[in-house]
Amino acid sequence: MSKKVVVLLSGGMDSTTLLYFLRNSGFDCFPLTISYGQSHAKEILAARNVCEKLGLILSWKLVNMDCLKTLLPSALTGVGKVPEGQYDDSSMSQTVVPGRNLIFLAVAAGYAQGLGAGGVAYAAHSGDHSIYPDCRPEFIQSAAEAVRLGYEIDLLTPFSGIDKTEMVRIGSKLEVPYWMTWSCYVGGEYHCGKCGTCDERKDAFVKAGVSDPTVYNKL
Amino acid sequence: MSKKVVVLLSGGMDSTTLLYFLRNSGFDCFPLTISYGQSHAKEILAARNVCEKLGLILSWKLVNMDCLKTLLPSALTGVGKVPEGQYDDSSMSQTVVPGRNLIFLAVAAGYAQGLGAGGVAYAAHSGDHSIYPDCRPEFIQSAAEAVRLGYEIDLLTPFSGIDKTEMVRIGSKLEVPYWMTWSCYVGGEYHCGKCGTCDERKDAFVKAGVSDPTVYNKL
Repeated sequence: MSKKVVVLLSGGMDSTTLLYFLRNSGFDCFPLTISYGQSHAKEILAARNVCEKLGLILSWKLVNMDCLKTLLPSALTGVGKVPEGQYDDSSMSQTVVPGRNLIFLAVAAGYAQGLGAGGVAYAAHSGDHSIYPDCRPEFIQSAAEAVRLGYEIDLLTPFSGIDKTEMVRIGSKLEVPYWMTWSCYVGGEYHCGKCGTCDERKDAFVKAGVSDPTVYNKL
Repeated sequence: MSKKVVVLLSGGMDSTTLLYFLRNSGFDCFPLTISYGQSHAKEILAARNVCEKLGLILSWKLVNMDCLKTLLPSALTGVGKVPEGQYDDSSMSQTVVPGRNLIFLAVAAGYAQGLGAGGVAYAAHSGDHSIYPDCRPEFIQSAAEAVRLGYEIDLLTPFSGIDKTEMVRIGSKLEVPYWMTWSCYVGGEYHCGKCGTCDERKDAFVKAGVSDPTVYNKL
């Protein structure tokens, strides 16, 4: 029997690539999407569509933790405006949602334990910015230790040694439907093409030499 | 200025003693109570009453995470019946809520960061049973490391070296209103006096030589 694993799936490029990667590696995947009071639901719709496409809709779990919005102020949960243009440290720090990653890992670990799954997978990659301290390897390592000791759950981060460009190359070979995924922080009809995460998205496709299927707003 | 600290307050004896202890040590306390789909609200009412008594009602935060109920099956969230009598490993394991402690610490750390508080306090003590792996010192240590690295928040566990009896002695000197606190897993009008946590409560008062103000159901 293949190993059960809970996959934290936001509906963005990284976690969708992770889901395809693990499926392709023979894992029995249980995608978990957490709504935390994001200003828009585009990512969540993307996560659902990806699960539908993979025939995983019945294994997909969406949990509403919008209650966190009142605790965790951030531009992404409606406090302030999402900064435009290439991110510097100051504008990017406005998009930090305090505590988010550890909360997600802890919730996923609890869910995994209830399911009898042995692992939780999380799409941390080396391109995650140093301004997000809870994306750094030292943090991931100590969180993995806590999850292992507290819940006997393994934390799987197969992309931790590669960057977003390399990830797109892998995903492209696995035929990840990137057109279905959502990155933009703004959440209009199409990707805005202007915010920091749209910039990163475009950049990864260009550097990977993979054609970008995203529809961006005309600038 | 005194140091701001978020105090995880369940409304039970341990966390109420912690709150009194930290107040007495000069900390500026922000009590945080998390509803996670417990079968009853007695503890939450107790937490509110304690905050009211301490003049902290405006600093008290209650966050509803009942959404966790669908993810974290346990006798305490309505899956199965709360076991009676002194707990052995099997009956106690039915009261484990998977992932709970790490979720609480992560949520508290995020909340602390938003408040500009430097610490999160948590009433782990040496009497916490080995059947709850997420009460063990190794777990607490790795969780503290994750919280420090990810969020620059200190985890304060001043009771980690003492047991519940010693804690009651400390609390008694600080005039903790134990009659206001709630332990019983069952959640009737009075403490049932039969479940494992009622047993522990009674035991701690007896061993500490402190008179037990709790009203128990007539057996």
